[in-house]
Amino acid sequence: MQPLTLPPRLLMGPGPINCYPRVLQAMATQLVGQYDPAMTDYMNETMALYRRVFNTQNQQTFLIDGTSRAGIEAALVSVLEPGDKVLVPIFGRFGYLLAEIAERADADVHTIEVPWGEVFAPEQIEEAIKRIRPKVLAIVQGDTSTTMLQPLDALGAICREYDVLFYTDATASIGGNPFETDKWQVDAVTVGLQKCLGGPSGSAPISMSDRFVQAVRRRHHVEAGIRDSHHTGAKGARIRSNYFDLAMIMDYWGDERLNHHTEAATMLFGSRECAVALLSEGQDDVLARHQTAGLAMLRGIQALGLTPFGDLKHKMSNVVGVYIPDGVDGEQVRHDLLHLFNIEIGTSFGPLKGKIWRIGTMGYNARQDAVLHTLQSLETVLRRQGFSMPAGAGVDAAMAVYAGQAQG
Amino acid sequence: MQPLTLPPRLLMGPGPINCYPRVLQAMATQLVGQYDPAMTDYMNETMALYRRVFNTQNQQTFLIDGTSRAGIEAALVSVLEPGDKVLVPIFGRFGYLLAEIAERADADVHTIEVPWGEVFAPEQIEEAIKRIRPKVLAIVQGDTSTTMLQPLDALGAICREYDVLFYTDATASIGGNPFETDKWQVDAVTVGLQKCLGGPSGSAPISMSDRFVQAVRRRHHVEAGIRDSHHTGAKGARIRSNYFDLAMIMDYWGDERLNHHTEAATMLFGSRECAVALLSEGQDDVLARHQTAGLAMLRGIQALGLTPFGDLKHKMSNVVGVYIPDGVDGEQVRHDLLHLFNIEIGTSFGPLKGKIWRIGTMGYNARQDAVLHTLQSLETVLRRQGFSMPAGAGVDAAMAVYAGQAQG
Repeated sequence: MQPLTLPPRLLMGPGPINCYPRVLQAMATQLVGQYDPAMTDYMNETMALYRRVFNTQNQQTFLIDGTSRAGIEAALVSVLEPGDKVLVPIFGRFGYLLAEIAERADADVHTIEVPWGEVFAPEQIEEAIKRIRPKVLAIVQGDTSTTMLQPLDALGAICREYDVLFYTDATASIGGNPFETDKWQVDAVTVGLQKCLGGPSGSAPISMSDRFVQAVRRRHHVEAGIRDSHHTGAKGARIRSNYFDLAMIMDYWGDERLNHHTEAATMLFGSRECAVALLSEGQDDVLARHQTAGLAMLRGIQALGLTPFGDLKHKMSNVVGVYIPDGVDGEQVRHDLLHLFNIEIGTSFGPLKGKIWRIGTMGYNARQDAVLHTLQSLETVLRRQGFSMPAGAGVDAAMAVYAGQAQG
Repeated sequence: MQPLTLPPRLLMGPGPINCYPRVLQAMATQLVGQYDPAMTDYMNETMALYRRVFNTQNQQTFLIDGTSRAGIEAALVSVLEPGDKVLVPIFGRFGYLLAEIAERADADVHTIEVPWGEVFAPEQIEEAIKRIRPKVLAIVQGDTSTTMLQPLDALGAICREYDVLFYTDATASIGGNPFETDKWQVDAVTVGLQKCLGGPSGSAPISMSDRFVQAVRRRHHVEAGIRDSHHTGAKGARIRSNYFDLAMIMDYWGDERLNHHTEAATMLFGSRECAVALLSEGQDDVLARHQTAGLAMLRGIQALGLTPFGDLKHKMSNVVGVYIPDGVDGEQVRHDLLHLFNIEIGTSFGPLKGKIWRIGTMGYNARQDAVLHTLQSLETVLRRQGFSMPAGAGVDAAMAVYAGQAQG
């Protein structure tokens, strides 16, 4: 039983990535009680901070105590009654996840798909909505499995026109790519901390519009053992999960402070600090930092003679897919980067398994030194595998991006 | 956006309580990747440590990423198919919670109840099992709402006799009261960190016997997007939750390391350290420390002329219910303790609301100084409310317990 001792990895995969040191410090804070005014004040402050992160006025903005997929499941099982139609446009692994979670809720799940490496045009989604008339549109913004960023700005208006609730998961993209809850008329959004927000997995911020809240609240049910006479029964089909019952979780985060779970205080402290890190640096500056780091990594990869994956016009700023060149052992490269240089890059899933690496530039690691370390280490490891490249070209190209950005 | 600043509370309620400082330190550790050998080694080590905490040989011993009720829901929704009979003996709020979670899974839920402040005799449970013939018996070991500790040692044999799966939640009791998974033939147990284990809420250790694992595995289903040709479909009714699908979570913690959620690494570091704290101090010594602190608090309370709640033969070591005396404003006492002395004690739920306080002595706070501070502060606050007591009697009685223990 030795003390925890971990190697100093530089995490340049698709997430999780290294936490901001301030986030780690915040998570070492001693607890107070869950209904202590000091705690409930921080709960309220965290709600306010995430309204700013999500760019929303939504009152119902808080944390789900679990990893990012806990947020997804909470949103979907709380709104989807058995038999409800949901449309899931799929452009990567996480689209399948949304569909699967909705299926398990016994929703009537309809999917449309584009090949991995592409995104949907709004017209494709509108056509499917007209045809299917779903209660909910569920789509991810950024899918790390393909590195693609689905444009969402036109979908809210389409959803309003056809009276569809618009849900999106922005775990992979938030903080590194624009996200506008209110402007885009998003009805519910969930995220995690472990990508561009620079925290650990384990807390899932969520924000819900009044329309979405209404759809959930009609299923409201207070649990036996803490139910008082003024609590009335549910109108809609009872939400199948207690843990993910957003109606009850709203009561916990609301004025009534009705006991549900015991808030995961350490994760709340971490979540709060992620928001503070983003907002005190400035949302626009953080976005620009991610765009520069992502472009520098992309240009560096290309300068090394490597080919990026997918439709680059729709790539997330914070991750790039890189084809593993012929004759190169992709797993050996990852192994060498990890064991020689303490640098982690990502492998891939499903149809891309064994075909591409995924290299991230997220949160704390969206930094010039992290980009340069990664490019020169990748060059060294590839050279030792016999892959020939122009020496130093990756780093030079990345530095040129930073120089241009500095001049601009 | 000021740095996180919390008052130095002494948390003497029914939990959460103050974390061990070593646990807080562990949670400030920088991350590594989720499939990094350094990470998976710690995952394996954490499994081994919790086998020792649970006193079991069960291979399937790991963490659910959520608060303690996430563990409860994972166990129940993974084993209970719609229509399956479950027996829930209820002796407090958390019994209702088990029943409610099982109801939401559309199980056929049968309950038996004893008044708050009592526990069940094994014969009562056996009689109900014979009558109902459930697939699962679900019962909590310690229910903080009543402070009672249900004896479990005879229930495993009864469950085996009638081919019932025996599930228990030991969140409130583990670490402060004996728990013997294998000796008691428990098929599944879930806990949280925020009581006697001295960590924060947000991680739920679980252990499952082979019988329980078998009942879950027949419902095994690998999610689309990561499914390979060698993954076959489910045999039993598909588990309704993706997040709480223990069959998939076993694949993630097992050799296949099949991607499910992204492990909440910070909570894992905290969970591991809770186990290390318990096991390096020694399980028997930690139990004795809780028993002494709990007895000292009880004797102190009685010496102050206050009346403890419930059947003291079956009280958990780590929490005592205390009747609020006539003429005393219970909430004012709690307010004064918090704001004058930075000490938190607990209020109550349901039928006990407004009638008793709950005072805990758990984990890091199962210490003589914490007991004495609480007793003398309670005395001061009560005296200022006009309640008359023999001066210093609470502290004297508690010190006598510690003196006896030291001599013994």
